[in-house]
Amino acid sequence: MMHAYGTTFPRLRAAAGPVWGAYTRHAFVEALRDGTLPRSAYLGYLVQDYIFLIHFARAWALAVTKAETVAEMRACATTLDALVNREIRLHVRTCAAAGLSEADLFATDEHPANLAYTRYVLEAGHAGDLLDLLAALAPCVMGYGEVGARLGPVPTDHRYAAWINTYAGAAYQQICRDAGALLDGAVARRVGLAPEATPGWSRLCERFRTATRLEVSFWDMGLSFGD
Amino acid sequence: MMHAYGTTFPRLRAAAGPVWGAYTRHAFVEALRDGTLPRSAYLGYLVQDYIFLIHFARAWALAVTKAETVAEMRACATTLDALVNREIRLHVRTCAAAGLSEADLFATDEHPANLAYTRYVLEAGHAGDLLDLLAALAPCVMGYGEVGARLGPVPTDHRYAAWINTYAGAAYQQICRDAGALLDGAVARRVGLAPEATPGWSRLCERFRTATRLEVSFWDMGLSFGD
Amino acid sequence: MMHAYGTTFPRLRAAAGPVWGAYTRHAFVEALRDGTLPRSAYLGYLVQDYIFLIHFARAWALAVTKAETVAEMRACATTLDALVNREIRLHVRTCAAAGLSEADLFATDEHPANLAYTRYVLEAGHAGDLLDLLAALAPCVMGYGEVGARLGPVPTDHRYAAWINTYAGAAYQQICRDAGALLDGAVARRVGLAPEATPGWSRLCERFRTATRLEVSFWDMGLSFGD
Amino acid sequence: MMHAYGTTFPRLRAAAGPVWGAYTRHAFVEALRDGTLPRSAYLGYLVQDYIFLIHFARAWALAVTKAETVAEMRACATTLDALVNREIRLHVRTCAAAGLSEADLFATDEHPANLAYTRYVLEAGHAGDLLDLLAALAPCVMGYGEVGARLGPVPTDHRYAAWINTYAGAAYQQICRDAGALLDGAVARRVGLAPEATPGWSRLCERFRTATRLEVSFWDMGLSFGD
Repeated sequence: MMHAYGTTFPRLRAAAGPVWGAYTRHAFVEALRDGTLPRSAYLGYLVQDYIFLIHFARAWALAVTKAETVAEMRACATTLDALVNREIRLHVRTCAAAGLSEADLFATDEHPANLAYTRYVLEAGHAGDLLDLLAALAPCVMGYGEVGARLGPVPTDHRYAAWINTYAGAAYQQICRDAGALLDGAVARRVGLAPEATPGWSRLCERFRTATRLEVSFWDMGLSFGD
Repeated sequence: MMHAYGTTFPRLRAAAGPVWGAYTRHAFVEALRDGTLPRSAYLGYLVQDYIFLIHFARAWALAVTKAETVAEMRACATTLDALVNREIRLHVRTCAAAGLSEADLFATDEHPANLAYTRYVLEAGHAGDLLDLLAALAPCVMGYGEVGARLGPVPTDHRYAAWINTYAGAAYQQICRDAGALLDGAVARRVGLAPEATPGWSRLCERFRTATRLEVSFWDMGLSFGD
Repeated sequence: MMHAYGTTFPRLRAAAGPVWGAYTRHAFVEALRDGTLPRSAYLGYLVQDYIFLIHFARAWALAVTKAETVAEMRACATTLDALVNREIRLHVRTCAAAGLSEADLFATDEHPANLAYTRYVLEAGHAGDLLDLLAALAPCVMGYGEVGARLGPVPTDHRYAAWINTYAGAAYQQICRDAGALLDGAVARRVGLAPEATPGWSRLCERFRTATRLEVSFWDMGLSFGD
Repeated sequence: MMHAYGTTFPRLRAAAGPVWGAYTRHAFVEALRDGTLPRSAYLGYLVQDYIFLIHFARAWALAVTKAETVAEMRACATTLDALVNREIRLHVRTCAAAGLSEADLFATDEHPANLAYTRYVLEAGHAGDLLDLLAALAPCVMGYGEVGARLGPVPTDHRYAAWINTYAGAAYQQICRDAGALLDGAVARRVGLAPEATPGWSRLCERFRTATRLEVSFWDMGLSFGD
């Protein structure tokens, strides 16, 4: 089952073509699912994902500066708060259990795949308007929601239950629905109810598709840590 | 009594010269204090200040994108949250009592004095680094703290008790101390413990002084609504 | 006669309403025309306009970063070059003849009316996309073109011939037509050929109208130097 | 022989450590030198480098917005002009000779290594001040100068004479010296004559080192096109 998370996201997903499946059904994901993912791959991924989330939080902060209504500002600020005060802490806890302090995480060299993805999203926001930024943010937010919903929930003795059940959980699924509603509202406000018919639609599709390509590279990077 | 709010703020304030007093002891402030400020001046100011706070919140969100540590990010995100979820609501409530809806507030034409101040602060952030932005944010945050501490607390039957006691209150004074600590830490991290001896100090002083000049224009605007 | 400079500009101008006339037929302009403008007002304006042009050049540089095609990039880079390598030098020369060095100009305190206008335009660019920025840049570029075409050319012994004939001249009129073509192309590419029918049109009109309001304040500032 | 291009660049290069050699003596470079680089690798690289230069030009435009003096603005605007009006045209010509139109180039999917590098540089500029941006721009500008000076000039019948002699040539070497002077002046103005002693020095070194790492990935990408 594919999740909708509003009406704009499914249209961007359809326009992205096969790369969406390459991302959400990536070998890394399947190995998380069946528990065969090497611990080193998981931990290597998690350390990079910690750094990813810091820049992802910066991108949501940038979204606040590009909002046009107080409601849009509040929605973006809420997501920012969830990232810097909750999701990041989760990574810190898991990594701490593996002997890595938050200072260790913060000092890690960013992998080129991580630089590519995070800076692409941020720069999409600087170059364009809120829609450019949201289109580049959507693959991560909603893709993880889709993966989580497909893989979980799983029993707590599953090797990767912590990860799977986070993204399968009600709280994260609500974040996806909220992000979908924010995107739908931002589209309606800026380009109307038939965005596919507007000249700017192909640019939004390109933002979404490029971010999705960079998700694939991010999973590739994760697998490479298991070599 | 002058408040310290850390060690950098008093140095920037001293470097600003007489314009600091022109701001914190402006006729608008004195009229708030003795209750002679016309209601029309107060309401006109409050409506513009609502719009000001929206852009001020955007500036704190921009600060999140310019932070270099997770601690800096959290400090800025907390201030952003306080603005969009608390201080703005205060204005909405007071204005609602005077018959103005939040939609009315949001639709108000921004006064040139408001445009000058808010856009100057935001653009200082875009042009420079976090220090440029914090130096431009400081006069508002700490100046209101200083005014509040000098004028209040006052009995609740004072004509402008709501305003005075907000800024005289413990919660707002803590915000000022936190902002001072954030500024001190950002300075230490970027230019060291003797910032006055660095070539960039005059630029930070200029940011602070210009923002203070624009506070004076903002009070001038407030008084003009009472004519 | 009103100049067209493309098809989008006249529509934005019409939507701005009476403020457009308040700007292009401002008392400062009429006093330039009949030569009654005090020299002190002219020089005070010119010094502020030098600083204005620096920030205006920065805004055209920002436009390069927000372009979507190489043609858009080149158009914006050409305007940037014209500003920093030609128009600014004109101000420097005129001010030098009046005994003011470029260092004097650069060190002048920016007037709040100048801060309001320049930072509004730059921040419109940061907050939105290229259209937001171009809509905020258009009133200055095309308004001066319109004023120049109405007032000039004048004989070289007219007191303000240097100013009037610059903006009435073929080179500046071409800049206006090029800016109009850039705007039309950017609109077509992003929102299509019927921009008034799109939800974002009111935002572009608001950008244009606010920048026009700030032009009025800028002339007001100019007149105030003659007091 | 190592080129100096001023006094700051050699210090950043020394601080970067072995990654500098990994970049400037990369297998791609050595294969350019001895002419063994497969044509497919060269062309694949050139197409990506066309897109790289577009974003690199955008980064120099961003630098104009972050300049603090008119001289800094003019230096950055001149580099921008050289990129969009000369260096990019060179790529267009070479690619045209190989049957690729500029439209083909512009429509090419950006490789993740390209996205990583260009967006990292741009975002370094948005996050920090002009020094952050120049430190991230320097490895490309000066590294190509160093490679050119080491490999060339070569006789025009060398397989890669066009590339080598461009970067070995007097015009490009002057660009490197100008960029070095701009960097030195920007450092002196902002942090003084002993930048290594300032707290922000490690951040600048990190910007430079990360951009250098991304140059290595960019050459890796180039080689991969020859497979």
